[in-house]
Amino acid sequence: MTIITLTTDYGLKDHYVGVLKGAIYSEQKDVHIVDISHQINPFNINQAAYIIQNAYQSFPKGTIHIIGVSAEWSIDNQHLVMLFKDQYFICANNGILSILTENILPESLVEINAFESDKDNFPAKSIFAKVACHIARGGTLDVIGKPFNQLKETRNITPIINTNKTIITGTIIYIDHFGNLITNISKALIQKIKNGRAIEITARGTVFKKIHNSYNEIINYEIPKENRATKDGEKMALYNSNNLLEIALYKSDLFNEGGASTLLGLNYGNQITVKFKD
Amino acid sequence: MTIITLTTDYGLKDHYVGVLKGAIYSEQKDVHIVDISHQINPFNINQAAYIIQNAYQSFPKGTIHIIGVSAEWSIDNQHLVMLFKDQYFICANNGILSILTENILPESLVEINAFESDKDNFPAKSIFAKVACHIARGGTLDVIGKPFNQLKETRNITPIINTNKTIITGTIIYIDHFGNLITNISKALIQKIKNGRAIEITARGTVFKKIHNSYNEIINYEIPKENRATKDGEKMALYNSNNLLEIALYKSDLFNEGGASTLLGLNYGNQITVKFKD
Amino acid sequence: MTIITLTTDYGLKDHYVGVLKGAIYSEQKDVHIVDISHQINPFNINQAAYIIQNAYQSFPKGTIHIIGVSAEWSIDNQHLVMLFKDQYFICANNGILSILTENILPESLVEINAFESDKDNFPAKSIFAKVACHIARGGTLDVIGKPFNQLKETRNITPIINTNKTIITGTIIYIDHFGNLITNISKALIQKIKNGRAIEITARGTVFKKIHNSYNEIINYEIPKENRATKDGEKMALYNSNNLLEIALYKSDLFNEGGASTLLGLNYGNQITVKFKD
Repeated sequence: MTIITLTTDYGLKDHYVGVLKGAIYSEQKDVHIVDISHQINPFNINQAAYIIQNAYQSFPKGTIHIIGVSAEWSIDNQHLVMLFKDQYFICANNGILSILTENILPESLVEINAFESDKDNFPAKSIFAKVACHIARGGTLDVIGKPFNQLKETRNITPIINTNKTIITGTIIYIDHFGNLITNISKALIQKIKNGRAIEITARGTVFKKIHNSYNEIINYEIPKENRATKDGEKMALYNSNNLLEIALYKSDLFNEGGASTLLGLNYGNQITVKFKD
Repeated sequence: MTIITLTTDYGLKDHYVGVLKGAIYSEQKDVHIVDISHQINPFNINQAAYIIQNAYQSFPKGTIHIIGVSAEWSIDNQHLVMLFKDQYFICANNGILSILTENILPESLVEINAFESDKDNFPAKSIFAKVACHIARGGTLDVIGKPFNQLKETRNITPIINTNKTIITGTIIYIDHFGNLITNISKALIQKIKNGRAIEITARGTVFKKIHNSYNEIINYEIPKENRATKDGEKMALYNSNNLLEIALYKSDLFNEGGASTLLGLNYGNQITVKFKD
Repeated sequence: MTIITLTTDYGLKDHYVGVLKGAIYSEQKDVHIVDISHQINPFNINQAAYIIQNAYQSFPKGTIHIIGVSAEWSIDNQHLVMLFKDQYFICANNGILSILTENILPESLVEINAFESDKDNFPAKSIFAKVACHIARGGTLDVIGKPFNQLKETRNITPIINTNKTIITGTIIYIDHFGNLITNISKALIQKIKNGRAIEITARGTVFKKIHNSYNEIINYEIPKENRATKDGEKMALYNSNNLLEIALYKSDLFNEGGASTLLGLNYGNQITVKFKD
């Protein structure tokens, strides 16, 4: 059974998500529809790209991803379908796909011109759903449109490394439900630059000397449980499940006691530095 | 595979939606369950009617809609199942169905008296789920109850047209996730009254001279992209995907910069006028 | 088709829920995935236990429940799979399972040691999803791990009955989406202690003399509808759909007019007393 995922900024209160699912099932009943997120901040291209980029890799080959963010057609926001790493992405030419592919050439990229007459202000329903069902039925991309090679270039901010390779300056690219701060500094980059040196991470005045591999690593399990001081709320740096440097609070609860974002006073777009010391 | 949709005011935190789905799958595994919304304001009949009315039309024939809003049984809030435009609606007699049908006679309307002994304070689970599964198995309505003809009459407020047909006074009937204001004035009504005249829409002091057909219509694509001033946040009037007059902000973000509702200071129930000028 | 349910504290904005579903469908396409809740307060064991305890009973035999709350592996937070009342529960040894089983011995309880090498900081994806798919394919628990008998004992607070059986002191264990206050005092307990006596419930100064069986019971349907005063917002005590004593407002709307929690000034963990009077 083919999987069609949805990533949108529609929210969950209105009828829009239901309408989109109804349109898909009206054409093709034999699919699983999976919500990735409907709570992308309205029109936020970078956030949508971050979410889909971290989600798609866990889906099987042949999965079809509908991205309903900033999707209204215009002459410079064409409707596209891309085959990339054996999965399909249906999205407007709004910058999301170039962030997603990170300079890697997709297997196929097509501008949708089928269903043109259905163009309206709900394209995910009137165009994208139909393209998804066409693919789910085994249809090919060349029937849907013509090859396209003008992908709008929007790139994520990449970390900056100083010339003598002693400092990486990264950026907070996402704040998750727990208030944890996810940076654009990958484990691979740190390991490449580190070269046996000590590390010092600075996040708005707070300094971390160690990057953990799991949240629980800050607990000393050799001390019997009844004697351990609680570590809840303790600040820490770690590599997260996407192998990105993350600043977190141990077992934080953003909406009650606060999370890393609120307690450290850091926000999307702020900088984090990693210093390497001999 | 039959589709069963859910429209409720249960929210997504509690176990209620899960319980309802469990009850359905316990009886009938071979169905798709689709959430339309679980964030209807508690007991808000008009909002529920608006959502289901705009959602059901995208679903295939034979879809079964469970409406779990203000559904507790009483002698004047009977449990009903309606066949309307080839789809099934299971709902209490609380006014939603009469808004939905808009004076059109349904194909069938039955008061549920099967499963009477299961009546409790979670009727969507103990009654509606069973009725839905009965229908999904191909069961007929006459087995479930007896014909009913006392649909509670709750109507949406309809626009008022003055006697010399120069002004339509409409009402904001819904505010969506983007903060856009949806009125009860349809494209068909405006086109009927307009008769070649100019138009002037007033929404609490803000005046619009044009109704767009898409959000992007306010952008001048003849100017090269790098020279265009941003239109983000610009106020506009348009016909939305349901062909209703909508007051919107171009690419608005209600929870950050604010939407049409917050910036124009307009709310559910407020009035919008459309003047026609020779 | 096997059902796999998800109960987590991931929220719905991030990619985590999508990733988990992708991991499941990558291994096993022929399952229904049902969201029970993704809005458990972060790391809140008692809330997660309450939700899953009230949800699982409506699911069919053989259902597999993944509980992604406080699930990171440690030497005292082992990964477990439990067969209990013909359903499977995959959860860390964090106290949730002992609340769920309430001293009843499960049919089977196994510490997961398959997939050990996949241990990371997203165990619901890298371990629990695989265990769930193994079970969905008909696999047995003995292949996954070894019998376990050190379930972490976390108990829900139980009501206290005074020695001469005139007062039950209970606790608010959950506040739902409507703002209704759910206590740990069951209908069965009250009926056992009552012994024909009158009842008086005190909730922070508000006194109730009657426990209703439905919300609508406070309406006098003998009065014609047009003459009835509204009861909306009226305080009441009732047995809820899980047969627990609940303090509610009739047709309350927590986020607009307020609910029982805000209007009575009562919160999670506060006490409610039931007095019995000759």
